[in-house]
Amino acid sequence: MTDPTNPKRTELSALGEFGLIDHLTSGIEIKNKETLKGTGDDAAVIDNGKLLTLVSKDLLVEGVHFDLTYTPLKHLGYKAAVVNISDIAAMNGTAKQLLVGISVSNRFSVEALEELYAGIRLACEKYHVDLVGGDTTSSVSGLFISVTVIGTAKKEEVVYRSTARENDLICVSGDLGGAYIGLLLLEREKQVFKANPQMQPDLEGNDYVLERQLKPEARVDIIHKLKEAGIKPTAMIDISDGLASEILHIAKDSGLGCRIYENKLPVDVVTADIAGEFQIDPTTAAMNGGEDYELLFTADVNDFEKLQTIKGIHIIGHMTEKAEGEYLISNGGSLYPIEAQGFNHLK
Amino acid sequence: MTDPTNPKRTELSALGEFGLIDHLTSGIEIKNKETLKGTGDDAAVIDNGKLLTLVSKDLLVEGVHFDLTYTPLKHLGYKAAVVNISDIAAMNGTAKQLLVGISVSNRFSVEALEELYAGIRLACEKYHVDLVGGDTTSSVSGLFISVTVIGTAKKEEVVYRSTARENDLICVSGDLGGAYIGLLLLEREKQVFKANPQMQPDLEGNDYVLERQLKPEARVDIIHKLKEAGIKPTAMIDISDGLASEILHIAKDSGLGCRIYENKLPVDVVTADIAGEFQIDPTTAAMNGGEDYELLFTADVNDFEKLQTIKGIHIIGHMTEKAEGEYLISNGGSLYPIEAQGFNHLK
Repeated sequence: MTDPTNPKRTELSALGEFGLIDHLTSGIEIKNKETLKGTGDDAAVIDNGKLLTLVSKDLLVEGVHFDLTYTPLKHLGYKAAVVNISDIAAMNGTAKQLLVGISVSNRFSVEALEELYAGIRLACEKYHVDLVGGDTTSSVSGLFISVTVIGTAKKEEVVYRSTARENDLICVSGDLGGAYIGLLLLEREKQVFKANPQMQPDLEGNDYVLERQLKPEARVDIIHKLKEAGIKPTAMIDISDGLASEILHIAKDSGLGCRIYENKLPVDVVTADIAGEFQIDPTTAAMNGGEDYELLFTADVNDFEKLQTIKGIHIIGHMTEKAEGEYLISNGGSLYPIEAQGFNHLK
Repeated sequence: MTDPTNPKRTELSALGEFGLIDHLTSGIEIKNKETLKGTGDDAAVIDNGKLLTLVSKDLLVEGVHFDLTYTPLKHLGYKAAVVNISDIAAMNGTAKQLLVGISVSNRFSVEALEELYAGIRLACEKYHVDLVGGDTTSSVSGLFISVTVIGTAKKEEVVYRSTARENDLICVSGDLGGAYIGLLLLEREKQVFKANPQMQPDLEGNDYVLERQLKPEARVDIIHKLKEAGIKPTAMIDISDGLASEILHIAKDSGLGCRIYENKLPVDVVTADIAGEFQIDPTTAAMNGGEDYELLFTADVNDFEKLQTIKGIHIIGHMTEKAEGEYLISNGGSLYPIEAQGFNHLK
């Protein structure tokens, strides 16, 4: 489609979310020696002294990232904080401070914002994080939440996406696909409700996947367990856009290929059952679902035995040389190329 | 207006912007010893080692903070970065890193975002700041820009709002009211254009106030001059909401009163002329206009002579004990109570 007033118009969808941010930030030169890492990882890394400072930010938009018809505001506040705290965990650091900006139309009351803040404050309590700033402004319509999180790590502790090595084990915490299946359930009940507002939502027995969607946790427990076991991941990222998208980040940024084994993917039985109801392959939910906020990391093969003793960590594959490409090996032994089909809000 | 589904509904306008953020963040306890200052100043202050880390964030909303009918996107990007860099200057620190989150509807093209980023990058070049992160997501409608800035300062250098002392001189950099008068001009031309799209905007000779509105600068030059002169402000804030609102922040947070002299207020002749066209008292523009991003600070009376030698700094009054209240002393010698009438986007 050509805009007559603007002969050169490229639609945002032509680049997609990752392509767009790469495009807009390409060629940026770092000017300050304290800036160790700019764009392109879970957090920026700054050296202001004894400890490194990690900073990450996220923007959550009503109608794009959340739907208030089925998201309680307290849950939303909790999740907005947690997904940022998860970014610091994914750098192998500890989240310490949080800043929140909220833009809100006058459709919302003070009590509604109190609920939202109650969720943010609950997450700050749980993760021992200080809420140190924020602004609240009006919007013409809708709710926008902007969160910045600041953390610390010792210099020798920080783990990037780009430092995986050939033959490293690929590991994931917890289980996958649940958050996506929870979202499908909530969307289905919303449609039922729209068709007949007298209907009560039928969500019983589905608590697990609903909680995965509405109240995710940052896996700081896994970070602690790895430290206790003396394991430092060689590369790490948190799973916000789906396993496929995230392992491709690690592979691409590390200049490697990878193999993931379908029969090693951790999927909870509730997730698999409900996926069946929706006629969705649980593997698809695990690979492309997103929003699980589990940690995906690589580790030295020599840590194999130690890793097996840690509850909640699954070894799902290994890194290869780049020429071998990125493949999922199915239960039947076939190779499927891994493609990023995660949430792309600009497509 | 009562919402039948929510018997307790307090409208956001009942609290206003500052009241709301105070309300939502009240009673927050700091949990980490590294957190030296949380909410309530231009930036949060974190002690991660040799230098303190300063962090501030701002959310800019289309239709609330800017109007794209007369704001070029490159200017908007520049301003979004500068107003945050100004927050770090107002802590007597140096901005080092910037993170940008943009939420945008598909009404915008890639080229439009390139323009926006060109402005952000220009500001980063000028102020020697590294763009270290950001995300770009879609919005249902409108453009939202969320900026986080990180800076540093030596421990003994940081200046808060709350540390002014009785008899301290009140100083301001540059001149005031120009940005507001520039906004009035742009709004007037917008109305003319709406009434008759064939009309060309009549903005000639008004470059100064238009630039004050569209392309403000952070006064890091003033911070350097003060350091060179061996002056450390006793309290400082940048003027985003208008001199009246900002001096009340310093007075309230320091537990003091203040006197400001109308005949000392620096107003540029162009600002005064155009204010006259709009039948607005230049003093009103200076006191309540906002968006000048000049620095307002207090200094020891013993620095009086040194301050007078610094170009671009004006001594406009002094701090008093709290019981004396906050007053503007008019050219005629009358006392007018200072009231915050700055931008309050929630009213």
